[in-house]
Amino acid sequence: MPLLHELPEAVLELLEKPRVAVLATVRADGTPATTACWYGLQDGMILLTVYANARRLPNIRRRAHVALTILDEDPYRHVSVSGPVARMWEDPEMEVMNLLSMRYTGEPWHEREPCVSMLVEIERWHAYGVLSDGSDHGPAS
Amino acid sequence: MPLLHELPEAVLELLEKPRVAVLATVRADGTPATTACWYGLQDGMILLTVYANARRLPNIRRRAHVALTILDEDPYRHVSVSGPVARMWEDPEMEVMNLLSMRYTGEPWHEREPCVSMLVEIERWHAYGVLSDGSDHGPAS
Repeated sequence: MPLLHELPEAVLELLEKPRVAVLATVRADGTPATTACWYGLQDGMILLTVYANARRLPNIRRRAHVALTILDEDPYRHVSVSGPVARMWEDPEMEVMNLLSMRYTGEPWHEREPCVSMLVEIERWHAYGVLSDGSDHGPAS
Repeated sequence: MPLLHELPEAVLELLEKPRVAVLATVRADGTPATTACWYGLQDGMILLTVYANARRLPNIRRRAHVALTILDEDPYRHVSVSGPVARMWEDPEMEVMNLLSMRYTGEPWHEREPCVSMLVEIERWHAYGVLSDGSDHGPAS
């Protein structure tokens, strides 16, 4: 699977921006669910954290595969990624939320609520309006 | 199922803006896929159109249920909706794309490529940062 640093530079540059992403999971009944979320980049993967009581957590435990779309300031430039959850861990101290809060707001996160954090491999990706040569679709998108 | 006009006014106001949405479908292997899209509001439902050769079309034909999240200019205000496809029709003249192009750009759509258009019922919804009383979650979200 491609790691982040193997993506085209323009795609990576967009992903590095602290843009609010839209995350999709799949419910028990097989229907999709979306919500907005923060994300980060770590170990060549997408870093996510969710509250332990979030509705999307059982979705992810059941089908450990998610998809995200990140719209740039100009929403006609966007990147979508999807892939399996490579690692998931209890995060009672909200260490990942704190990292993401620093990334998005420059401030630490003060709340302490049990969270679950995870790293998502980039199995597929596609981009639109991002690559100058027009070859916006990743090989496995 | 709630129709659009039964949603709280602030939620409907956000949906009425021509914001680029993120659409989720479910692939044959049960994993979620996301992409950016235009949408409209018609007959109390969400109006979508996709190219007949788009990868998401077989996903929707297989599982006729989609989810969308719409981020406001302030992305900490957002609305997510999901529900079954109530009606789907061949749209070879891109009538819906033309409608959506007028909504988003004020200009008609000049291309002619076979499309498939659809209306999506709002079975579940949730909002964040939108409702002044803090009750941002819809009853069936």
